[in-house]
Amino acid sequence: MKIDLFFTHTSAAEEKLKNRTAAVIDVLRASSTICEALRNGAKEIVPLAEVSEAMELAGKLSREKILLCGEREGKIIPGYDLGNSPLEYTREIVEGKTLLFTSTNGSAAMVKASAAKNTVIACFNNISAAADYILRQSGDLTIICSGTNQQFSMDDAVCGGMLAHFLTHQCEGEVELSDAAEAACVLYHKFQGKIPLMLAGCAHGSYLRSLGYDYDLKFCGRVDSTEVAPVLKEGKIVLNDE
Amino acid sequence: MKIDLFFTHTSAAEEKLKNRTAAVIDVLRASSTICEALRNGAKEIVPLAEVSEAMELAGKLSREKILLCGEREGKIIPGYDLGNSPLEYTREIVEGKTLLFTSTNGSAAMVKASAAKNTVIACFNNISAAADYILRQSGDLTIICSGTNQQFSMDDAVCGGMLAHFLTHQCEGEVELSDAAEAACVLYHKFQGKIPLMLAGCAHGSYLRSLGYDYDLKFCGRVDSTEVAPVLKEGKIVLNDE
Repeated sequence: MKIDLFFTHTSAAEEKLKNRTAAVIDVLRASSTICEALRNGAKEIVPLAEVSEAMELAGKLSREKILLCGEREGKIIPGYDLGNSPLEYTREIVEGKTLLFTSTNGSAAMVKASAAKNTVIACFNNISAAADYILRQSGDLTIICSGTNQQFSMDDAVCGGMLAHFLTHQCEGEVELSDAAEAACVLYHKFQGKIPLMLAGCAHGSYLRSLGYDYDLKFCGRVDSTEVAPVLKEGKIVLNDE
Repeated sequence: MKIDLFFTHTSAAEEKLKNRTAAVIDVLRASSTICEALRNGAKEIVPLAEVSEAMELAGKLSREKILLCGEREGKIIPGYDLGNSPLEYTREIVEGKTLLFTSTNGSAAMVKASAAKNTVIACFNNISAAADYILRQSGDLTIICSGTNQQFSMDDAVCGGMLAHFLTHQCEGEVELSDAAEAACVLYHKFQGKIPLMLAGCAHGSYLRSLGYDYDLKFCGRVDSTEVAPVLKEGKIVLNDE
């Protein structure tokens, strides 16, 4: 298996998606939030790149079955039901609902990943479940780190490295890492066992702490706290039922 | 001093260049070749993004005073005088000449860096000279790793990390590293003392070896083999005369 990795969704090359499995990582916080929403019974999540798209789609759907979810600059979008904190996505609120979800980086990465053959959403919370899903698919893998504002983000890079490291060790065949995938593995080895510290110190983690989201960082730093493997099917993110 | 770092020239944010010093890194091979050309007495080097630009400019200048230099896909451009191997840039050939230089990644990064207040060209060969130049400037630093074909390239990232590491240790004031600059430092620490091995194993190094440029890799992997600090002045790269 070849593993390519991109540190931002904007840099992800289209030809590295076609006929491949893609893993989309947005540790802080879209991937973590989506895992939590599905774990708590959300029916499906529709990732949308733009706020206006979500508003338009919401207008066409039965309002009691949907929730408008997402953030800009880390904060809930005016008029939306939920922001991007996984703690908001409780069973009482999300069970059975369709979530229209737009975040600055993560949902744009998920939209881009729809060009892949299969797409799984990954974060520290579900890293082993995501790795297991990937190992059950055939072909090569492209890891898309969402990044922050179209720039490298340490949290996503370390998580991408953890995924590449797990796959390298679990894969029976040969694994061939791109330069960026190898670099991400080096970063993972540096921060292995110190994930919460890394999240608190990285640029986007510091920004979220300044907004008062300290507990979100703790939540997003938990490794393998859930077994859900969210996958993209026909433009919607659902629990993998394979 | 704040240090920002971009893993590709295309991702380098314009607002991180204005009123800053920029360091452009293309280890394999533009930065290394430019250092060697200036060390061997080239008058100046004009970085140009496109092959056609260089051809057009050459038509307007006295042909005996200039050399058309550069590569595409690692190979000399048809009709050009020199390719992108530092070994071609001997004193006999380049002394006193103006070099019109276009390479796939490096010269595009240099053109982009012209938006900065000051720009230095850096590689392993002149890493201490480049760091010294930067420390003599005021303000923050943006390191632009040229990357390969608009993607992350391990050689440039490790060299960028080495530069950030040197500055962090030599700078009397506080140094604030961006996520990407910190990541590059981690990569440098991983490959410290193993630069030739890293160059031989990375994607672009492997490609150049497949073209028979093994000796170029050895050349480009030498740390502090020269004291030249090439700087960009009015669109031309010259020896720093400060």
